[in-house]
Amino acid sequence: MVQNLDAAQYAGAVYLVNPKRPVLHGRQCLGSVEELPCGVDCAVLAIPASAVVEAARTCGRMGVGSLIVFSAGFAEAGTAGRAAQQELAAVAREYGMVVEGPNCLGMVNYRDGVALTFVSNKHCAQREGAGAAILSQSGALAAVLAVNMQHHQIPLTYSVSTGNEAVNGVEDFVDYFVADSSTRVLALVVEQFRKPQQFLAAAVRAQQAGKHVVLLHPGSSQAARASAVTHTGAMSGDYAMMQALVRHAGVLQVETMEELVDVTQLLVCLREMPRAGAAIFTESGAFKALTLDLCERVGLPLPQLSAAAESALREALPAFIPPSNPLDLTAQGLVDPTLYRRTLPSVLEDACFGSVVLAIILTDAQTMELKLPPILDALRTLRPAKPVVFAALDEGAPLEARFLTALRELGVACFPSPERALRALARVTQWQPGRAVVPPAADPALAGRTLPSGVWTEVASKALLAAAGIRIAAGSLVHTVEQALAAADALGWPVVLKAQSTELPHKTEAGGVMLGIDGEEALRQSWATLQDNVQRYRPGLVLEGVLVESMQAQGTELILGARRDADWGIVLVAGFGGVQAELLHDLRLLPSGLTAQAMEQELHQLKQSALLHGFRGSPALDTAAVAEMLVALDVLMTSAPQIREIDLNPVVVYARGRGALALDGLVITD
Amino acid sequence: MVQNLDAAQYAGAVYLVNPKRPVLHGRQCLGSVEELPCGVDCAVLAIPASAVVEAARTCGRMGVGSLIVFSAGFAEAGTAGRAAQQELAAVAREYGMVVEGPNCLGMVNYRDGVALTFVSNKHCAQREGAGAAILSQSGALAAVLAVNMQHHQIPLTYSVSTGNEAVNGVEDFVDYFVADSSTRVLALVVEQFRKPQQFLAAAVRAQQAGKHVVLLHPGSSQAARASAVTHTGAMSGDYAMMQALVRHAGVLQVETMEELVDVTQLLVCLREMPRAGAAIFTESGAFKALTLDLCERVGLPLPQLSAAAESALREALPAFIPPSNPLDLTAQGLVDPTLYRRTLPSVLEDACFGSVVLAIILTDAQTMELKLPPILDALRTLRPAKPVVFAALDEGAPLEARFLTALRELGVACFPSPERALRALARVTQWQPGRAVVPPAADPALAGRTLPSGVWTEVASKALLAAAGIRIAAGSLVHTVEQALAAADALGWPVVLKAQSTELPHKTEAGGVMLGIDGEEALRQSWATLQDNVQRYRPGLVLEGVLVESMQAQGTELILGARRDADWGIVLVAGFGGVQAELLHDLRLLPSGLTAQAMEQELHQLKQSALLHGFRGSPALDTAAVAEMLVALDVLMTSAPQIREIDLNPVVVYARGRGALALDGLVITD
Repeated sequence: MVQNLDAAQYAGAVYLVNPKRPVLHGRQCLGSVEELPCGVDCAVLAIPASAVVEAARTCGRMGVGSLIVFSAGFAEAGTAGRAAQQELAAVAREYGMVVEGPNCLGMVNYRDGVALTFVSNKHCAQREGAGAAILSQSGALAAVLAVNMQHHQIPLTYSVSTGNEAVNGVEDFVDYFVADSSTRVLALVVEQFRKPQQFLAAAVRAQQAGKHVVLLHPGSSQAARASAVTHTGAMSGDYAMMQALVRHAGVLQVETMEELVDVTQLLVCLREMPRAGAAIFTESGAFKALTLDLCERVGLPLPQLSAAAESALREALPAFIPPSNPLDLTAQGLVDPTLYRRTLPSVLEDACFGSVVLAIILTDAQTMELKLPPILDALRTLRPAKPVVFAALDEGAPLEARFLTALRELGVACFPSPERALRALARVTQWQPGRAVVPPAADPALAGRTLPSGVWTEVASKALLAAAGIRIAAGSLVHTVEQALAAADALGWPVVLKAQSTELPHKTEAGGVMLGIDGEEALRQSWATLQDNVQRYRPGLVLEGVLVESMQAQGTELILGARRDADWGIVLVAGFGGVQAELLHDLRLLPSGLTAQAMEQELHQLKQSALLHGFRGSPALDTAAVAEMLVALDVLMTSAPQIREIDLNPVVVYARGRGALALDGLVITD
Repeated sequence: MVQNLDAAQYAGAVYLVNPKRPVLHGRQCLGSVEELPCGVDCAVLAIPASAVVEAARTCGRMGVGSLIVFSAGFAEAGTAGRAAQQELAAVAREYGMVVEGPNCLGMVNYRDGVALTFVSNKHCAQREGAGAAILSQSGALAAVLAVNMQHHQIPLTYSVSTGNEAVNGVEDFVDYFVADSSTRVLALVVEQFRKPQQFLAAAVRAQQAGKHVVLLHPGSSQAARASAVTHTGAMSGDYAMMQALVRHAGVLQVETMEELVDVTQLLVCLREMPRAGAAIFTESGAFKALTLDLCERVGLPLPQLSAAAESALREALPAFIPPSNPLDLTAQGLVDPTLYRRTLPSVLEDACFGSVVLAIILTDAQTMELKLPPILDALRTLRPAKPVVFAALDEGAPLEARFLTALRELGVACFPSPERALRALARVTQWQPGRAVVPPAADPALAGRTLPSGVWTEVASKALLAAAGIRIAAGSLVHTVEQALAAADALGWPVVLKAQSTELPHKTEAGGVMLGIDGEEALRQSWATLQDNVQRYRPGLVLEGVLVESMQAQGTELILGARRDADWGIVLVAGFGGVQAELLHDLRLLPSGLTAQAMEQELHQLKQSALLHGFRGSPALDTAAVAEMLVALDVLMTSAPQIREIDLNPVVVYARGRGALALDGLVITD
């Protein structure tokens, strides 16, 4: 750490404290924390875990503003460690100290050349220009990312590892970086958000300030979630819910370290976000075909040339190069130094392209000397505001530093391979702005109700759902077969019978549901069978009644639902019903506060969404009605905080204009 | 080219021919091809396209063994070019000359330092050790790959670009490299196989010789297939069929240039193929979780530790490191130099692991100096035959050349990032040995039949299918409603009616299929409706009769089929029926000559294969019967070469032991 501070020529005061050694690294040591002057900004505790709490308390007494605790052996190490961590937190709160760690690798403030980490870092002062802040719960990955980003010449502002987060977590540092004028991009590695709502709010603020948050969060696999529990001692949250909510807050999620670095580079370089697909200039027909494959795979749209762009390109290109996107320039760049200056304007000025990728073959120094100067010349002349990305086709070709620096100065992101460039560009192009979660207005009529607690019967659930404006099948609760007959006559045959009891949440399994009953005799028989089934399934159970409903027209079945998470708040869910959907995990999680229109757009993101559009001659379905149903669920959850969960399974969706209908409903309250 | 030959100190005779310049590069030029001595091995034609055919003819007369033709402007450039290419081919055949090109970038023979290419190449002599041959139809990508592979220190034997393939194609060069003792891995970029069966046979021979063929073939997207047509002037084949057949021939397919390089490196280094999943040693808990996610995504199995390995590791590790896979060694490698020597044996000796990955944090030179020597020491001591892969976690950390060389000498593949290492290892671990296509024995009874040509009726198709041993619903062809009644009584009610005419291949659309007819009155009415429908659909059509079949029990519906491709031969197909399957493209293409067991394994690779195993309480299905049906189709196709296509749609599959049944069948003959 002392070497790091020296390397960065840190000019502030540094006090070393060591009870045993009077001199370290040629500097005088103080014998104890008590000898420190008052008002030290930050104390780094590089001492055994057992001495941490006492040292922290002394620091607090001495007016130290913050602590960095490297020592491991706290919450990650069992019961005693957890107790020690709580004690450390209590001390920090008592004295109002910020704490990084314990079990962390410290931090680097590149702007002021303050490297409070034991990881050797020779380049820990980068005092100019906007850049990226690294923020990682894992200290190892913070260190790895710093090496990686510096290798790719990504300017850094800070690197912080938060470790066990006894007091301050990633959310607090995100708050700080969002307010820091030099930080444009936040590159995060998070294993668990402890204050998710604080994070979501900060992510939205980041975007309002023209900044981006890029998140790598392990846990897409069950195995990783299990591992996180042992590794961090933290409970694993609901990964899919986290994903959906941070996406709606405008966070860019990535899947690997490589992507985290590449997307960060792109965002640091970009002057504006791409608002459409990419135009790609390349130099090989086979590579063009590979690019078409790759872009389809990673989801980067490659728009067709507009008529204007096509005719401009046709004019600028020799006859043997047909205009297209991607554009195969062949080896023409080697013989025509004005090629790029003449061809680039047509795609830079065309609004259907959000970015331009130059995928160039470098081979050797001689070729590079022929190709790069004309490209740089064209970019200097055209000064595009639109994102431009440079990718060398041949990884390892010796792209000279002067070319790389010149490209970066022009705001061009540079990648060692087209695969990486296109993957990162796809993520950035797919990005959707986030929005602050604005809960819908509570409905006073719903908010005023007294709700029983526990698992509700279908009939009770449906009464509440109907009050919330959700369309359900008409029905009556009856207690005798004669009442059932009267109800069937009133509702219209054929009918269904459904046993009702809070102790029978799985009534189908219990044989408590009878379908397609068409006539008195059938009803009498079904009634008897239903009663028998329920008695066999749960002897002695007294039903609260039987729900009689008229059979509804068949249609495509969806599953809708809502639940309240202790940390993340309200989340809605919409998906297809049936076996295939279950195999495909075909559902979408949605935050509270979306408009009906946004809800409907989400339905069209379902894997089997083709089934909603009128697949193979069937009519397009009433997704607007489904979206309204989701909004109604959201209002109900917001109005009645006692509700923990609502399930509508199934919801039948009819052709456009004919609505949607919840065939079953379940409400669970606290 | 002359500079390349000089750089490689090529010792053979080189003749320059130029009618205008007496001296080039300080060498005397001959004024014409006629002045060449007899028996020149290879003539490189770096001349305008218009002069190529004449020069080729003269070369032929002078006994030149082979031609390399750089010139473009042949088949890729329209009608005149195609004619010129055919003339060039005719000349080459007349004189028995091998031809590379036209429209190619030439070749490099690294073993003998012969670089016959105009791409500058300073390292074109690598005279020792086994290595990889690059073979690409695209000259640009051959050049790019050479730079890329040399950057990753992959030893090269040859690099050939075949261009337009007027005479010799990739298949011929594959034949040569399979026979070449120095070539262990063939790295291919192919846009179209012109002689696919030759390639498949060579791929199987490659494997028998202990070699591997790695293939990058654009065309997974529709856009890329369309682009290939304009780019190469070649018709685009059936990409899915190509994929299935080369996979069954043991070819390793990859999706990007990066993967082609990485898989090639791995295969050049490996002493044996991994026969199971990987054990991963790493140094961060967060990275362990990311690795679990990534391995699930790329399909690399990470087996659990065996009890023996777990107990051995527990003994070798400090108490704070719990044995697991991946294993998080924390930073313990920095303080314990014997860590790797003590822990590696437990996974190297455990048969449940097919490979070992060391994913190491390098950070800086100092850290590297602490970590690498103990790792190298352990590997030198243990000399594992099992594949070992080294991945630096921090891309760009300055891994010193001496460490890299030492790792490579120990047969360890080295990757700049764990993502790349694990993706490449997943491909290699998933690899299945190919098998030579052994067509099933023809059935003399089937081979002896005289088959009418064209589209067959269902009843005729089913007669042939039944003769081939395929189970179909019992039925009778009738011509009157009275005959239909008698047939229904004999077959058993309820029945179906199906209009039969070769001019009515889509009989369902025509209203020519009536289902669920249960009784005389219904049958009479259905008969009349059917006749009416058909007359309305195709007025004046005379049916060949009506097929009466008894209704069959419902079950899961599959679609089976077979077709004969002009280039690739017989290919079978099996998939799920229904709308979801169509959305998912859920089908498998299978080569001829698989055993019933192999066919059944393929069925279990379908995306919705869970539906075959007894999903959610339904019984496991009789996939063995379906596999037998596929074998019967294969025998039928093999026995009767006039058959172009067979479709069984649907085939109903019942519970295990209860078989499968083709409900409809269609045969098309040439």
